[in-house]
Amino acid sequence: MKKKSIKELGEFGLINHLTSDIRCHKASTVYGIGDDCAIFNHKNRDSLVTSDMLMEGIHFDLVYTPLKHLGYKAVVVNISDIYAMNGTPEQIVVSIALSSKFSLKAAEELYKGIKEACRIYDVDFVGGDTTSSMTGLAISVTALGSVEKGRAVRRNTADDKELICVSGDLGASYLGLQLLKREKKIFMKDPKIQPELDKYPYLIERQLKPEARKDIIQQLQEKDILPTSMIDLSDGLSSDLLHIATQSNLGCKLFEDKLPIAMETQQAAEEFRLDPGIPALNGGEDYELLFTIAQKDHEKIQQIAGISIIGHMSPEKEKYVLVARNGKEIPLEAQGWNALNRSGESR
Amino acid sequence: MKKKSIKELGEFGLINHLTSDIRCHKASTVYGIGDDCAIFNHKNRDSLVTSDMLMEGIHFDLVYTPLKHLGYKAVVVNISDIYAMNGTPEQIVVSIALSSKFSLKAAEELYKGIKEACRIYDVDFVGGDTTSSMTGLAISVTALGSVEKGRAVRRNTADDKELICVSGDLGASYLGLQLLKREKKIFMKDPKIQPELDKYPYLIERQLKPEARKDIIQQLQEKDILPTSMIDLSDGLSSDLLHIATQSNLGCKLFEDKLPIAMETQQAAEEFRLDPGIPALNGGEDYELLFTIAQKDHEKIQQIAGISIIGHMSPEKEKYVLVARNGKEIPLEAQGWNALNRSGESR
Repeated sequence: MKKKSIKELGEFGLINHLTSDIRCHKASTVYGIGDDCAIFNHKNRDSLVTSDMLMEGIHFDLVYTPLKHLGYKAVVVNISDIYAMNGTPEQIVVSIALSSKFSLKAAEELYKGIKEACRIYDVDFVGGDTTSSMTGLAISVTALGSVEKGRAVRRNTADDKELICVSGDLGASYLGLQLLKREKKIFMKDPKIQPELDKYPYLIERQLKPEARKDIIQQLQEKDILPTSMIDLSDGLSSDLLHIATQSNLGCKLFEDKLPIAMETQQAAEEFRLDPGIPALNGGEDYELLFTIAQKDHEKIQQIAGISIIGHMSPEKEKYVLVARNGKEIPLEAQGWNALNRSGESR
Repeated sequence: MKKKSIKELGEFGLINHLTSDIRCHKASTVYGIGDDCAIFNHKNRDSLVTSDMLMEGIHFDLVYTPLKHLGYKAVVVNISDIYAMNGTPEQIVVSIALSSKFSLKAAEELYKGIKEACRIYDVDFVGGDTTSSMTGLAISVTALGSVEKGRAVRRNTADDKELICVSGDLGASYLGLQLLKREKKIFMKDPKIQPELDKYPYLIERQLKPEARKDIIQQLQEKDILPTSMIDLSDGLSSDLLHIATQSNLGCKLFEDKLPIAMETQQAAEEFRLDPGIPALNGGEDYELLFTIAQKDHEKIQQIAGISIIGHMSPEKEKYVLVARNGKEIPLEAQGWNALNRSGESR
């Protein structure tokens, strides 16, 4: 049977086609897709809400972004914000604007990625909007989560002398993006040349299909560690740490030699003639968790694999300092993505 | 003091500039703008969530849409969905993608409208995302609301013989749009000709700055009437009524002479050589409430001004019927906007 096109299906037909297999599993979802609103109830817990919009040409380039990965990533970056509050993601609502060049197959791929993320992170897809776009693709995801009352972890609640911790490793996603951009440029010049991406599978995956650190939140809970402040790394370590510091009215001291950097990141940085510390500090989209803990939790935190202690908070007047490998103290600046020539970008 | 441009402000500066005066007032808002997520708690009530995305060139034309009205409308269309579930709006989250042609003044106007809608409808603005767009303006609003447990009114719960009611009047917004489009065409040909819109202030306002029917929900509650099903009119009466009928596994019978049509709508329809019944049935964006009630509530509903009883539900096999003014029965079709030459539009 020949598949209908988006135009033949019409708006309601398209939404039906893309969402008819969606089922809700969470106890907190009362009613999912199909009415003016979805209904949910987080019982005795506080509710969390966050929203992020991804725009074609700004946040992704369809030349090298598989649509399934894009759908997955659009969900993950929102869920990451729920974890960054020490919450549990529960529901998502997704609005998508498609240009007429989109095929039904393409829309299906995008939804496949969204549904896959829902399955992996145990989240219900409860509603949204599918509409047209005159130009590029736009995806707006709103994630809802819950957290035990009084256990939400904010970014403005760090205290002096607390330890600064980060999960995973830094800068990989940024270098993945640089590789994809480089291969695109080569491909544009000569489409017969096959892109060379096999050398850095980890970097490419970090950029195209990042994961949110559900595992870290679970382990912190198991070890009974409540971070004193937390944020997820979307803009880059220096920029995001400065959110914690300025909003907590504190200074901070980071040690360059403590920054966790993966082998592939080191190698690719060399290839791009970059000091690996630069993407580690300023590359965005790592979606790792950056948090502070009380000194009393020092021993406990070392029992969790994949968490690095990279510095400590300090009195406000001591400001934001990076201690370089040679022992020199350099002022830490919130450069984020803009400094890394994705100017005009905002996230 | 000269105002900075969006570029000079940067992303964080822009968000700060636009949101620094936002305060939360609702008891259900625990923490508003400024962290990875907002925190809310709807206590013992069920929560509602809905999301709508407005895209430039599809849902609005900046040639004749004041940005303040656009911001207002983007909020209202979402809040209308909360009322359509018999809920109370509580919080909104707003994501906006701006192209570089946008001035700071323009962004401020847009936010002014959003904040104004929050004030009028007593809703807290708790978060969102401001980002760049390569092309047009995109606005995605997610509204959160609450409803007493078990009192949410869905669209698939109508019963046979129940009365079909609608608030306000129909078709005005569609004709307002036709007027704006006509004047744009004239203006494009000769910019010296002033647009003639004074004749139809009501129609223009219905299109550019619609309101959600908070008052109707309040009055239904005061009269102790719980609609048996409800939806808000975004796609057009026939299309939206068919959602109720098909999802409730029922037929329905509408009476053309009962359709509430404003005087200006009648006049403008004549000017466009349209039967006023056409925009009343198929024009969208009225944001009125369409609902069914039990026959026992017949007398009570007549005590609420501005509600029209326009038909009744019928057994499924009798299908969807419009009784025309001449007594003839015509099949009712869900034409919605597509039939009214906004093809490609989806809402």
